[in-house]
Formats: sequence, structure tokens, C-alpha cells
Amino acid sequence: MSEAQVRDTPEGRHPIQFREEMTVELIKASASDSDVIWAARVSTAGEQSLDAVGADASRAEGLINYLARERHGSPFEHTSMTFFISAPIFVFREFMRHRIASYNEESGRYRELRPVFYVPSKERRLVQIGKPGSYEFIEGTPEQYEITVNAIKESCTQAYENYQKMLDAGVAREVARAVLPVTLYSSMYVTMNARALMNFLSLRTAREGSHFPSYPQREIEMVAEKMEAHFAQLMPLTYGAFQKSGRVAP
Amino acid sequence: MSEAQVRDTPEGRHPIQFREEMTVELIKASASDSDVIWAARVSTAGEQSLDAVGADASRAEGLINYLARERHGSPFEHTSMTFFISAPIFVFREFMRHRIASYNEESGRYRELRPVFYVPSKERRLVQIGKPGSYEFIEGTPEQYEITVNAIKESCTQAYENYQKMLDAGVAREVARAVLPVTLYSSMYVTMNARALMNFLSLRTAREGSHFPSYPQREIEMVAEKMEAHFAQLMPLTYGAFQKSGRVAP
Amino acid sequence: MSEAQVRDTPEGRHPIQFREEMTVELIKASASDSDVIWAARVSTAGEQSLDAVGADASRAEGLINYLARERHGSPFEHTSMTFFISAPIFVFREFMRHRIASYNEESGRYRELRPVFYVPSKERRLVQIGKPGSYEFIEGTPEQYEITVNAIKESCTQAYENYQKMLDAGVAREVARAVLPVTLYSSMYVTMNARALMNFLSLRTAREGSHFPSYPQREIEMVAEKMEAHFAQLMPLTYGAFQKSGRVAP
Amino acid sequence: MSEAQVRDTPEGRHPIQFREEMTVELIKASASDSDVIWAARVSTAGEQSLDAVGADASRAEGLINYLARERHGSPFEHTSMTFFISAPIFVFREFMRHRIASYNEESGRYRELRPVFYVPSKERRLVQIGKPGSYEFIEGTPEQYEITVNAIKESCTQAYENYQKMLDAGVAREVARAVLPVTLYSSMYVTMNARALMNFLSLRTAREGSHFPSYPQREIEMVAEKMEAHFAQLMPLTYGAFQKSGRVAP
Repeated sequence: MSEAQVRDTPEGRHPIQFREEMTVELIKASASDSDVIWAARVSTAGEQSLDAVGADASRAEGLINYLARERHGSPFEHTSMTFFISAPIFVFREFMRHRIASYNEESGRYRELRPVFYVPSKERRLVQIGKPGSYEFIEGTPEQYEITVNAIKESCTQAYENYQKMLDAGVAREVARAVLPVTLYSSMYVTMNARALMNFLSLRTAREGSHFPSYPQREIEMVAEKMEAHFAQLMPLTYGAFQKSGRVAP
Repeated sequence: MSEAQVRDTPEGRHPIQFREEMTVELIKASASDSDVIWAARVSTAGEQSLDAVGADASRAEGLINYLARERHGSPFEHTSMTFFISAPIFVFREFMRHRIASYNEESGRYRELRPVFYVPSKERRLVQIGKPGSYEFIEGTPEQYEITVNAIKESCTQAYENYQKMLDAGVAREVARAVLPVTLYSSMYVTMNARALMNFLSLRTAREGSHFPSYPQREIEMVAEKMEAHFAQLMPLTYGAFQKSGRVAP
Repeated sequence: MSEAQVRDTPEGRHPIQFREEMTVELIKASASDSDVIWAARVSTAGEQSLDAVGADASRAEGLINYLARERHGSPFEHTSMTFFISAPIFVFREFMRHRIASYNEESGRYRELRPVFYVPSKERRLVQIGKPGSYEFIEGTPEQYEITVNAIKESCTQAYENYQKMLDAGVAREVARAVLPVTLYSSMYVTMNARALMNFLSLRTAREGSHFPSYPQREIEMVAEKMEAHFAQLMPLTYGAFQKSGRVAP
Repeated sequence: MSEAQVRDTPEGRHPIQFREEMTVELIKASASDSDVIWAARVSTAGEQSLDAVGADASRAEGLINYLARERHGSPFEHTSMTFFISAPIFVFREFMRHRIASYNEESGRYRELRPVFYVPSKERRLVQIGKPGSYEFIEGTPEQYEITVNAIKESCTQAYENYQKMLDAGVAREVARAVLPVTLYSSMYVTMNARALMNFLSLRTAREGSHFPSYPQREIEMVAEKMEAHFAQLMPLTYGAFQKSGRVAP
């Protein structure tokens, strides 16, 4: 039986889709402000810190602010958040440079990849001005937007047709995927602790008032913003402390 | 106000204790066999792996065994277990060589350390025979045991008296603790994922049938065994796969 | 001044190239078999291990074999090798999943990417047979090879034209690169120690007699083989021990 | 043959020593300012960054300062420095909390430990004042110093006698060492890259003008200062950039 025959997604079954959004779902979390408290208290209270396990964290806001401000990072590590993320390959390429995290991603070797491609929305600033080290982005013209969307759609469509053509001819998925563009969506699970997440957020969002300014690409920032919203809800005091300390990861 | 006056633990309040046991408490966990399933399935199923979130893992035993046997380690990482551990300093010294973990420990700089010391139980094999690389431990004589316990008790008692003497004189805790022996108990929280924990267990337990034999010191093995019991309960299929694959961490 | 005007690489200056090879250059190394000796000896000899610094390692072959066989990995870490690598993006995507390493890569945000694309050579086995978990690759037919090369060349050419069109219109590089395929070559420096490199090699090469079999994609294996040749030359005894112990990273 | 008979260090051969200093020797390094240049340039220049390998770094001071100031840390990682360090166990306990490093240490399981103990010098400030979070150290009185030195010497001497007594009785080293105090010197090799080293220095030295103040214990700072001197000599521009950016690790 040839490879072509076992293809689980016959041509035509998956129509080409173009999306402007990123998907971020919180799969599970073991992360609360109170986790920071007992982890911090063990240094001064030893075994008595056990009393703080599961305790109300609200009275410990000062402690959390102090830890963030003075960069005592380790008490923020006893937490775990797992996200499912769908985003273009070029976003995952940047994401996976963060080494203090666990990843599992969809494989172009083991799966016929689905034709879902990212195109910028009209809000995406298309034009970069300034010099290296101090770039800024400004809005593109409608013509620039049209050129961009057309170019991306054309390239993706043609690339996916060539991908299908190779698969139809019995060529292995891992070879055929060579033609697929980095704007193709992929899926992954990522697990991080709160300290690693704050480091990620500090580098992958651009925010007024950040102590160390960052210049992330907009598309990874879109992912980061959704992760940040989950984090803010799970650990409101820690999140507040992160904000107050200029978004420097402790 | 002198340092001596602010001591929170006046002399005499903490009588010297000698213990033979290790404390391991599971503080919290986000770790189940089903976590391994969706993490593994994303490679072949992409976003459809979301169906496996929270699903019954029992039908996926074969997949888990396969992952462990073939050393696909990353799907085991989307898990988190936090333990509170009380053990002698010499155990923590070995423990903290494991870098894929998060630690917070009681501090001799910020706390007056409590006089709790480890002494071997009668079951502890005291005598080492053989050559480097192939040591074995055999039982000591009653005389050897008596010499050992007496020596440890005498040293600990005298060291703690000297510690108290320095604190009473107003010397800083971080200086005075210099005299305390490595058999002093300390407390810490440690958070690990299942992959890192399996690596820890493979190195810190001595077990018949292990593919790569390990020769841990008995005291860290006592800690590891208690961690292993929690792990086996939280992730029974993963634990079974670890056993079947010769206790090699995937 | 518009973005288009500052383009450092006017259209036409960089003709499209198709390559079949990977580039691996050893940039620098601080890695020799003798490094393993003093690192291992400190455990039994303390400060006297300093005598082994820079010493002839040849008489210590037995020690190195022992360390590899019994999986004492840490003495192999006091080494450092830096490689310059040019390979397709899909290879770098797999490479960067290895977290115990340091990376710096060419940026599609800061540079107009050059039109150099990977196409499989005639030796590349194009057809995958078997079931998931036990795939094998066999030779493709001349027709399959032709279809593959034509599809890749067509897609890459068209994608690069669209990339240029967007750049010419003043669209930012980071947006325009969306269309570029994962077979585009990128460049990076990677620094690893010998332990991490052995782990990389064990997973990214397929070799008879490996204790744990691996099924790497051929293209990352081409990179791994070139790295392996450098490693074998820099640390011949360590390399021999790695081979003898079934290519299991210690 | 009993354990006592194979002891390599008969009683009396190693007289007790008390030291006030830390030992830090640079064993080897592959670390220069020019390493930072090519690692940084690959992002904008791709393969052309190879021209910068081994080049004179002095004209690139501005680039290095920029990288440090804006916290682009990865280009500092393609460097490696290995140190031999002798310091008390309580220093190593703090040191090994730094996980981005490679360690090999003298073993109390495999070696009879030598009786070398740390005692504070007359310059060591012995008295801590202030509240948690804002401690300060002031000079002790001559009486406090005398009490401290006497207590440490007495405890160490007695502990080492008990250690010898157990060894003489045939008790295993790993059991007998329980009595040894944390002020005992140990030896280790540590290998770090420049980024990890800057992080270590920022946390383990107290320096006017540091952006984030740190409050290290004096003894680990003594080690850090000696490492810093080597680093400053190996990578003067990087070191200057670290200083200018408020000793924040990039």
C-alpha cells in the first residue's frame, strides 16, 4: 500500500483557510498567589511555612510585591500553566527560543498538515521606519495591505497545491512539507512556570512603562497578550507585582 | 537593640532532637497519565489532540509504554509535582545537583536553625566494602553502630551549643551556622515534572532490574522512595511504563 | 525615506540558488578528553585533580569508558564547542528543541533573507513505508524525484518573488517573510558541551547498534553527521566511549 | 579487609588547618569580546557574520554596550569559563542554586575529607542589624570575634576527631561525614558562560550603583570577586558594558 493511499486527508477535504487570529487556550494550571507565599516563607520559617499552603494570599500582597521588586525569582517557580496554542510557524520559531519551558508540537513528519494560513488583519502595522535598534511600525496604505494579502494568499495556495501534488505522488510528508510557508499555522502545548512566563511576557510584549523596553513582532505579542490575560486571572497579586516592578521578570 | 535580643527562639526553647526518618509531603500536583496522552497526540493529531484533554488514560497504556520505551520524553513534561521535604543538609547537597527542578529552602541566614539532626537507624548499613566503582554496603557491628551514634550525637550537641553561644553573643546567624554539621535537617519545597522526577528516581534509587545501575547514598534514596510512592499513585500508567523500561528516564 | 529605499539587497542582486548540502563549520572549541579527567577526578582527589589539568588523557581511556558506560554525565560538561550551521528552517525547528545549548540565528525581521533553498539530492529516500512508530524510507522513482524537485523549485521561486514584491512595496521584512517556505536556508551559531552534543547525536542520527534506536529526519542527520566528525576529532576517547556504550548520552 | 585499613590518609597525616581565604583559579576559557560580535551579527548579516570571527572587538564596543543595555543576552552565551574553586560547603550550597552551570565537586562518599576549615578574618563584619529585607552588617567587637573563632575552631576540631574515630572503626565515609560542619572546605570545578556568570555576579556581589541591589553573604562574594577579576580580564568590553548597565545580567 503506497503512502498516497493511506493519506488520512484526501485532497479537497481540507479547504484552504486564512486566519487573522491566534488561539490560546489554558489547558490546566497549578498556579496561585498563595503558592508564592509558602515558597518564600520556607526561608525564614522552615517547616512552619506549611501553614501557608492553601492560605488566603490577599494579606501577603506586600510580600509578593517585595519579591518581584527585589528580584527574588525562585518562589514564583512552584507553579505550572499549560496552554494550547495555534499560531504561525514564524511565531513558534521565536517562542521556542525560550528554553525554560516544555513543548510538544504538531509534526509535519507524522501528520498531513492542514491548509490554515495566517494573514495580517487590517490593524496590523505593515511599515517599519527608523534605524536598526530603534524601529517603529506605522500603518500601511490600503495598497500595501492589498499587495500583502494577495501575495500571501497566492503563495500559500500555490505552496499547498504543490504539497498535495507531492503527497499524491507518494512522496513522504517530511519531504513534501518543504514548500510550506512559515505563515502556516501549527499547534502546540507549552507548559511554563510563572517566573518563566513573566520573562516571556517581558520580552514578547511592548508596553509603556516597561523598565526594559522590548520590540516583539506583533504576531507573537498577540499570543503573549492572551497568555497574559490567563496569568492575570490565575495569579492577580503576582501579576500586579509584575506590573508595578516595570514588567521585569524576577 | 542587639541581634541576641531579637532572637525569636530563646535558648532552651528548642531541645535537641535526633531523627532517623525523612519527611516527604506532596503539597500539590498537576500530573496525571492523561496529560501524557494529549501532549503526545498533538504531533499526529494537531488541534484534535484537545479531545484527549481530561480523557480516560486507561486505554492509552500502550502509547505511554511506547513513549517510555522509545525515550520520547517531552510528553511527560507537562506535569508538575511539588513536595515538601525535610532531610539532612548532605541529602539536599546531592538533591540540588538536579538542575531541572525548582527549589526553595530554609535559610541559615534568615532563620535561627532548629536543632534537629539525623542519625542512622539500626537498619542503615554502615560498612562499605569493595573497590571504587563497585562498592557494596554491609551491616555494621553493634559496636560500630554505637560508636557512630555516639559520635554524631556528641558532635551535634556540641556544635549546637557553640551555635547558641555565638548567637547569644550577638554574632550573625550566617556566621554562627558555620559550625553546624551536614547532618542537620533542613526543609525545602521542590517542584519537578514527571520526566525530571523519573531521571531523579533512576539515579537516586538502587533497584534490581534497572537498566543502568545506580549507587545512591541510602539517605537520599529514603527521600526518593517516598517521592516515588506519590508518583506511582498520581501517574500509575507512567510509573508502570518507567518500571517496564528498566527505570530509564525517557 | 521609505523602507523600500533602504533595502540593502536590490532585486536581482541575489539570484535564486538551490542547494543539496548542509554547512557545518567548527568556529571554536574548548573541548578535549583531558577535560573529562580532572572533572571526574575531583570527586575522589579534590584539589589534587588539578594535576590532571592539561595532562595526557590517553592513559585514562578506561576512566572515560567507565563514565560513559555508567552514565556519569557531568564530567563531560566542562567543554564547549561552537558551530556555524547553514540549513533549512525545518532543520532548525527540530534543532532548537534541544534546550541545553546556546543559539543565535539570522533574523527575518532584521535582514532581507537570501534566496537559497534546499532541495533533496538524488540520494535522499523520498518514500515512507510502514506504520507510525516503525516507518522506513525507501528510494523514490525518478518520476517522484522530478515531481519533488519541480514542486519545490516552483514554490520557492514564486514565494521569493512575492517576498520581493512586498519588500518593493515598502512592506516590513517581518511581514513579507510570511510567504517564505521552511526549506529556506538560515544560518546560526550553536554552542554545546560534549554531554549535550552526545544527547543530540543519539537522537539525531540513525545508527546500527544504537542502544535506543532513533528515527531522525535525514536532513538534520546530515547536520548531525558533520558535527559528529568534529566531535570525534576533538575528543577521540570520549567519542569512542560514546560509541562503545551504544550511543547513549551519559 | 576493613574500610579502616584501606584509608589513604592515616590519622595524623592531615593536620587541622584554618583558613580565611577562598581559592579561585581559572582553569581554561574560551571567552572573548569578539565572540559576542559574530554571535550578535548573525541576526543581521547571516553567513557574513563569519568575517567577524576572531576579529578585533575594540571597534564594536558600542554594539556590546547596546546588547547589554537592551538585554539581548544570547550573544553572550557562546563563551565558556572553567574555574577551580575551594570554599566552605555553605558557600557551595548557595553557589549550586545557579542552575545554568556545570559542576563537579569533591565527594565525601568517595574521599576522606581533609580537615581544612574556614574561619572569618578580622575584617569580616560579624553583626547584623536592621529588619528582614534591609539587613546591614557592622563590625563585631574583639570579644565577639574571639568567641566566634574559638567556637568554630573548637567545633571543627571535635567534629573532625569524631569523623576520624568513625573511620578508624571501619564506618563508611558517607556515614562518618555527617558530623562535619558546613564551614569545611570543599573543591569543585564550575563551568559557566558569560551570561550566566553576569547573572551570578549581579546576585552574589553587593556593589554601589547596581540597578537591582543584592545582599550576598560575604563569603560567596569573596569567591564572586575573584571570578569577576578573571572575567574582566578575559572580556574587558563585555565587563565594561555590564558595569555601565548597572550590573544587570543581559
